[in-house]
Amino acid sequence: MSLKLYVDRVSQPSRALLIFCKLNGIEFEEVPIELAKGQHRSPEFAEINPMKAVPAIVHGTFTLLESHAILRYLASAFPEVADHWYPTDLHKRAKIESVLDWHHSNLRRGSVGYVLNSTLAPAIGWPLNPQAAAQGEKVLLASLSTIDTFWLQKDGSFLLGNSQPSIADLSLVCEIMQLEVLDEKDRDRLLSPHKNVLKWIDEVKNATAPHFDEIHTTLFKVKEMLHLKKSAGASS
Amino acid sequence: MSLKLYVDRVSQPSRALLIFCKLNGIEFEEVPIELAKGQHRSPEFAEINPMKAVPAIVHGTFTLLESHAILRYLASAFPEVADHWYPTDLHKRAKIESVLDWHHSNLRRGSVGYVLNSTLAPAIGWPLNPQAAAQGEKVLLASLSTIDTFWLQKDGSFLLGNSQPSIADLSLVCEIMQLEVLDEKDRDRLLSPHKNVLKWIDEVKNATAPHFDEIHTTLFKVKEMLHLKKSAGASS
Repeated sequence: MSLKLYVDRVSQPSRALLIFCKLNGIEFEEVPIELAKGQHRSPEFAEINPMKAVPAIVHGTFTLLESHAILRYLASAFPEVADHWYPTDLHKRAKIESVLDWHHSNLRRGSVGYVLNSTLAPAIGWPLNPQAAAQGEKVLLASLSTIDTFWLQKDGSFLLGNSQPSIADLSLVCEIMQLEVLDEKDRDRLLSPHKNVLKWIDEVKNATAPHFDEIHTTLFKVKEMLHLKKSAGASS
Repeated sequence: MSLKLYVDRVSQPSRALLIFCKLNGIEFEEVPIELAKGQHRSPEFAEINPMKAVPAIVHGTFTLLESHAILRYLASAFPEVADHWYPTDLHKRAKIESVLDWHHSNLRRGSVGYVLNSTLAPAIGWPLNPQAAAQGEKVLLASLSTIDTFWLQKDGSFLLGNSQPSIADLSLVCEIMQLEVLDEKDRDRLLSPHKNVLKWIDEVKNATAPHFDEIHTTLFKVKEMLHLKKSAGASS
């Protein structure tokens, strides 16, 4: 049964899906939907996702939206996926669900609010919005602090003190990677106080190599382009 | 094994949990954590949820946060819960997961942003914030429209065209019920264009009677109190 992933590698939840499938040997076709080119607003894509957002999947005739729902589905539908990604044990799974749910109104809200409004907006034709960026920064810093002191526990390398990564580790670290498009100094200012977070990002990168770096190449190209534009602006 | 629900009936996710347990005959002890009195910031509650938010549960020695994670857990841990609340069928479950995930950054974000900043803030000692209320309203209206035209489908009474409610129906309708604390006219302005949503709210109320109304009594008392205060302010 064919699996199509409608994704943009600049979108953090899209990257989480791609890495997850590659890591677990799940065969798929990548259908690029370039947000910067407005391809998510095309009539063809509206038939897949009328809400015009990536990622989305079509597995056979089954269409599914929302990255966490998709990760849960793939982990359950493909028996080759190791249990630690989305444990069948009721208590272990419930704890992972609580991180996945927490993510939306905290890390994701803060990260998108700050990165989009401080840096990325012009790349998709929107103006920068310093006030929205400031609100985003506040939520982002509080979320990084919560991960650093609460969700990461001393016993294990991954979230909830686990010794192996789950879909929550992958989703959250792909979100934090979005900070790569910021100025180096700004990124360091936000991340460097959170030592456990920095260590954990490395653990997730190592556990998902070489796919993690490969899938993030596009993001680093966007970073380079943004910084070239900024330098050109500063010297003109 | 004892089940304790740490809840405030003024909190919409708390109400969803209480209704769910009552409906399904799950025995529990309700531990009221009154947000208006700052009880979520007490050292005792910090031991249950260091993030100082309701709802939280303790089931035996197992602590769990985040209302959707808790609903999933309860539906899985208690065999008396009918399958339609959280179907074991992979595809049916995945679709419900996509609504649950969508909720956080859409309906919940819009509803909390509007209701809190336009009306409820003074009740917990915060100032009103018209700009944040306007942002919330925009997200709220877009979310109600998405439910009206996309998540509700013509074939069934509930979300996704289902003939019986799921935990997503309960969570989303409890969120929309928060609009009850607004002025009647304002609530009508927001809700009345969404005919399918209005019909669906009634379907969920009927399917969860008499617990739905019983658990919402506190919210209606808060509404009354707010309107009395407003009338007193207007006549002073």
